[in-house]
Amino acid sequence: MIIVMNAGASEEDIQHVNDRMQELGFKTWLSRGDVLTIIGAIGDKRLVETESIASMHNVKEIVSIREPFKMASREAHPEDTVIKFANGVSVGGDSEFITMAGPCSIEADPKLLFKIADAVKKAGGQFLRGGAFKPRTSPYDFQGLEEEGLKHMAEARERTGLLIITEVMDSVEAPLVAEYSDVLQVGARNMQNFKLLKAVGKLNKPVMLKRGLSATVREFLLAAEHIMYQGNENVILCERGIRGFDSTFTRNILDLAIVPVLKKLSHLPVVVDPSHATGHRYLIAPMANATVMSGAHGLMVEVHPDPDKALSDGAQSLMLDQYEAMMNNLKKVIAFNKTLTVPECLAKA
Amino acid sequence: MIIVMNAGASEEDIQHVNDRMQELGFKTWLSRGDVLTIIGAIGDKRLVETESIASMHNVKEIVSIREPFKMASREAHPEDTVIKFANGVSVGGDSEFITMAGPCSIEADPKLLFKIADAVKKAGGQFLRGGAFKPRTSPYDFQGLEEEGLKHMAEARERTGLLIITEVMDSVEAPLVAEYSDVLQVGARNMQNFKLLKAVGKLNKPVMLKRGLSATVREFLLAAEHIMYQGNENVILCERGIRGFDSTFTRNILDLAIVPVLKKLSHLPVVVDPSHATGHRYLIAPMANATVMSGAHGLMVEVHPDPDKALSDGAQSLMLDQYEAMMNNLKKVIAFNKTLTVPECLAKA
Amino acid sequence: MIIVMNAGASEEDIQHVNDRMQELGFKTWLSRGDVLTIIGAIGDKRLVETESIASMHNVKEIVSIREPFKMASREAHPEDTVIKFANGVSVGGDSEFITMAGPCSIEADPKLLFKIADAVKKAGGQFLRGGAFKPRTSPYDFQGLEEEGLKHMAEARERTGLLIITEVMDSVEAPLVAEYSDVLQVGARNMQNFKLLKAVGKLNKPVMLKRGLSATVREFLLAAEHIMYQGNENVILCERGIRGFDSTFTRNILDLAIVPVLKKLSHLPVVVDPSHATGHRYLIAPMANATVMSGAHGLMVEVHPDPDKALSDGAQSLMLDQYEAMMNNLKKVIAFNKTLTVPECLAKA
Amino acid sequence: MIIVMNAGASEEDIQHVNDRMQELGFKTWLSRGDVLTIIGAIGDKRLVETESIASMHNVKEIVSIREPFKMASREAHPEDTVIKFANGVSVGGDSEFITMAGPCSIEADPKLLFKIADAVKKAGGQFLRGGAFKPRTSPYDFQGLEEEGLKHMAEARERTGLLIITEVMDSVEAPLVAEYSDVLQVGARNMQNFKLLKAVGKLNKPVMLKRGLSATVREFLLAAEHIMYQGNENVILCERGIRGFDSTFTRNILDLAIVPVLKKLSHLPVVVDPSHATGHRYLIAPMANATVMSGAHGLMVEVHPDPDKALSDGAQSLMLDQYEAMMNNLKKVIAFNKTLTVPECLAKA
Repeated sequence: MIIVMNAGASEEDIQHVNDRMQELGFKTWLSRGDVLTIIGAIGDKRLVETESIASMHNVKEIVSIREPFKMASREAHPEDTVIKFANGVSVGGDSEFITMAGPCSIEADPKLLFKIADAVKKAGGQFLRGGAFKPRTSPYDFQGLEEEGLKHMAEARERTGLLIITEVMDSVEAPLVAEYSDVLQVGARNMQNFKLLKAVGKLNKPVMLKRGLSATVREFLLAAEHIMYQGNENVILCERGIRGFDSTFTRNILDLAIVPVLKKLSHLPVVVDPSHATGHRYLIAPMANATVMSGAHGLMVEVHPDPDKALSDGAQSLMLDQYEAMMNNLKKVIAFNKTLTVPECLAKA
Repeated sequence: MIIVMNAGASEEDIQHVNDRMQELGFKTWLSRGDVLTIIGAIGDKRLVETESIASMHNVKEIVSIREPFKMASREAHPEDTVIKFANGVSVGGDSEFITMAGPCSIEADPKLLFKIADAVKKAGGQFLRGGAFKPRTSPYDFQGLEEEGLKHMAEARERTGLLIITEVMDSVEAPLVAEYSDVLQVGARNMQNFKLLKAVGKLNKPVMLKRGLSATVREFLLAAEHIMYQGNENVILCERGIRGFDSTFTRNILDLAIVPVLKKLSHLPVVVDPSHATGHRYLIAPMANATVMSGAHGLMVEVHPDPDKALSDGAQSLMLDQYEAMMNNLKKVIAFNKTLTVPECLAKA
Repeated sequence: MIIVMNAGASEEDIQHVNDRMQELGFKTWLSRGDVLTIIGAIGDKRLVETESIASMHNVKEIVSIREPFKMASREAHPEDTVIKFANGVSVGGDSEFITMAGPCSIEADPKLLFKIADAVKKAGGQFLRGGAFKPRTSPYDFQGLEEEGLKHMAEARERTGLLIITEVMDSVEAPLVAEYSDVLQVGARNMQNFKLLKAVGKLNKPVMLKRGLSATVREFLLAAEHIMYQGNENVILCERGIRGFDSTFTRNILDLAIVPVLKKLSHLPVVVDPSHATGHRYLIAPMANATVMSGAHGLMVEVHPDPDKALSDGAQSLMLDQYEAMMNNLKKVIAFNKTLTVPECLAKA
Repeated sequence: MIIVMNAGASEEDIQHVNDRMQELGFKTWLSRGDVLTIIGAIGDKRLVETESIASMHNVKEIVSIREPFKMASREAHPEDTVIKFANGVSVGGDSEFITMAGPCSIEADPKLLFKIADAVKKAGGQFLRGGAFKPRTSPYDFQGLEEEGLKHMAEARERTGLLIITEVMDSVEAPLVAEYSDVLQVGARNMQNFKLLKAVGKLNKPVMLKRGLSATVREFLLAAEHIMYQGNENVILCERGIRGFDSTFTRNILDLAIVPVLKKLSHLPVVVDPSHATGHRYLIAPMANATVMSGAHGLMVEVHPDPDKALSDGAQSLMLDQYEAMMNNLKKVIAFNKTLTVPECLAKA
């Protein structure tokens, strides 16, 4: 950490900061320029609240030398994390690009889910998604089937061999959801529900963490760090659109450039969800193709045979024929993308 | 609900939407203009997912006639909610403007907390705030004293007679926190932790709900609705700053105009937290004074005798002398504000 | 236009609005439901300020039936606009995907510019970009070579046959810039400089309009409408990143989903600038490839042989070998993209 | 400027940066820690593009020691700027809080304007505002009366003795507008129209610069710097609301905390416009009162005798009786605010 003192800082101010850092167990060094003084400090950032140092008298600015996340950082862990499943599917690194698809909510009649599962299987998808516990903005909207929905999901897995991903909304429910699913999803609205992060961090199940609506890159990776810090290092990062200033034509803003940013900063796999990001089904296919070219490791989309009657998020769900058509093109894009090589001058840019 | 059909909608499209609405139990009427057709629909919005109607063929737009929140709306409940406490303090409506103050985190040595509590009492505050369970962006930051902290808070109440407000972060912990505190705080990062909203909604304790970092007014009031829907109607709304595009000089953007907006839409009390909103202690006093003039029912601020050594949020905590000075002026502003009358032409604007 | 009256609106309120609309030359019709009354109004929106109607007594909401832009809308002009240049290059519709490349600023020594122009030509680019008049946040930064820079650009065109695109910053300079360039660029900071839009709208030269930092889709298309309204219908829309809440790792947010949105709403060509959108050169190549898949008609990137010494925007400029490598891959992506067909079920989604 | 090198930076990388800084005329010093090396550099920032240094090999980060604005900074100019007018009115520093009021647009019939001017005069306002050149999002909206409007404004000044403030939209028109008005207004959409800033910077007339919709504090002060750099140091800063993520209930977000931020960083007067910030007339009075308490030097509001018929911005205009009522209260708030003293412990916070 580098602490820049104000031009007008007195010797006493400088000593006060220096002493405080040493008190906190940091090794410090001073660099006195003509105009200003810099205090370098090496130590365990865990022991210090940056802001409390920033608020000391005549401290101008604090520069962190290291990113605040550690286990999630590529610096600490240069090799890509690859998450392997029992059926041979893997996510991350140089694994095949994966797709996750399914309805937003699991509905009472399991036939609907099975119909979608069959379509996902047929189209070459690897994961069936579907919500049993639903985070809903309004208490008057459908709140999910809960455990019954999980059972439907498990049955769909039996039928198709697809892997199951479903959302967990509360620390108490985490073990139950983990029993039924292959990947636990933490939703955008819970990205900083730290008790939930802690709970899924203690389970032996991969977690897909969705980026919060206004989460910065650092906050996103620190949320992953919360999970990893509890022992669970199998975290998938998911960009699902951020809140923008104009939701007239897209529900959120798909921040696709975060894919190469996350891949540079972290070793964790990155998946993109254009359904929630855009909110309109005509935008899914072009954004899915763009997702492959961005370097992401996978894609999540919503599918429903009859979106007019879906209990949630109908407008952004692909119909089955649209899903199939999108997958047909997507497979070509994935295959094409493998033929491209990134020359060294760009790889090191 | 008003459903506007596209100019090019066929008779079949119109009937399809009309039938679907009737199927969902709505009473409908059609208004056919020269250019376009409108379908009016009256019924229980709880039974329909607006977006799934919006995605039907040739539907141009849906206009909701009523706000989606009900129990929180002033329409349904024209009288201001006033929350009364055993010691005679009340919040909301025409009650005296209240202040909540205390450290961000409760620290190991309770003497610090008692010192702050004494200062709050002396300055005329009504509530002591302090976090025992701390939501922290990084897993390496101090996570709170948990139950030990709650005990310190209860002891501070014994000494001073102040009411206690403290944050609850997880549905499981809600009953424990409720045992010790007078008001349960739901933090900004948990504003859409729906399981937590449900849990505090089932307790017989007032809840202060902080606005999420990028929560719209509707989302904020729907989060309050989640709590009220469970039976707990004593909800205090708290504006604490929203995420902006520039955090160089203020941590967040204090959205003060939301105070009269919330008071128009809802009957619930509104409190403002300029400490988290601005992040810098020199901004607290002017924003506290402005808060009174905005029509808010109360104020929450952070105080710490030695912010350099605070375990969290030091930079935005007032020192004790600053807190006392701010309160001296604030009391004058509160008294002055009571002398102003709002003429009818403005009240009905 | 549909005017929804409040439930409590009196007969007098309704008549007052109805009369006002007729006074403004609108044909109106009333639709009285059990709960509320709707006033439909057909006429020339140009004659009315929507907000002044919205502020009338007991008006609940106003719903516009038509988008406020006309000449820019696909509704009014279903065929794609294709802009054709003398050298046979064309932009928009089914034309070949085009690329624009060059330095941010034109610098004193024209050799640098010629070197870049040669590289652009060799790599298969169609347009040379370069700023002679530079909008700079600080008055202490390099403000551009002005007419001398335009002369260098013209000379580069002589050497290579590339088309020239350069920014115009002020209504007075528009004719001068038009003399030297093939496309006039209106920068993001001037997207709502209406006098400038008017000035370039009167010239007989294609205009590339960059989206403002926080411009909504409607504002963007209305800015294009300002140009078209003066008679110049050759407008290219350029997405160049919008302001987000986190500029730590990307300068702006690349809003790639706006490409299919704009193509649905408008017939105008759409180009993407990932250099300004991301601000970091390692992000350009993946976002350029993603741009092709989004359905855009072209790409603009910054190139500089020695970015460390560039007078502006060095960090986001590709070096010449990087540019060449990016173009090699991009050409493959363009060719591949042509092999994909969009099935009808997706085209009509 | 402090340049922090990456941990892995080679001796060659360090020398390369050091040499480049010296080449640019900077005096440098090196501080080598155990983990990383810092290069301090003192010199004229005008000679260097920070980003091009940031893009050099193994540069981790650049920390600016000084704010990029100079003439606008309080550091360079500790005394408050007070702008004095011939009629004895002054703005800034400890001058009396001033108010500016008037219609959004000047309309054809000057009687309307005179009626408003009389009301402003009677209510104790100092400035009459009104737009003759109107920046309008749509080309189909009323674009202003142009010079005829300026003449009406001048006539209103004759009648009332009020000072005149009106917007200038283009560098060419600046001298004409300056002839008629006492203060030139640069609108939010033109905050980075650098040619216009330059033009008004060369005139001998105070300028009120409105903050751009998504302008950071630094960008705002740098725009003021552009004007001052040309010789015109009489700049008034105006906060008028920034673009947020929710415009359902307020048009923009009023960022009131920017008032004490600007007063700390700069010596220039600060005025707040709650009409454009909120967009709804019922929000004007509470936000006007809050503005006084924030420490601002003045207020600008829109007034119209018949907002239903206003040619622009009707919904946010106060009616004459509302304006009068607001001013009555405001004068009490201003008088009360003068009775408060800011204790030293807060002034130095």
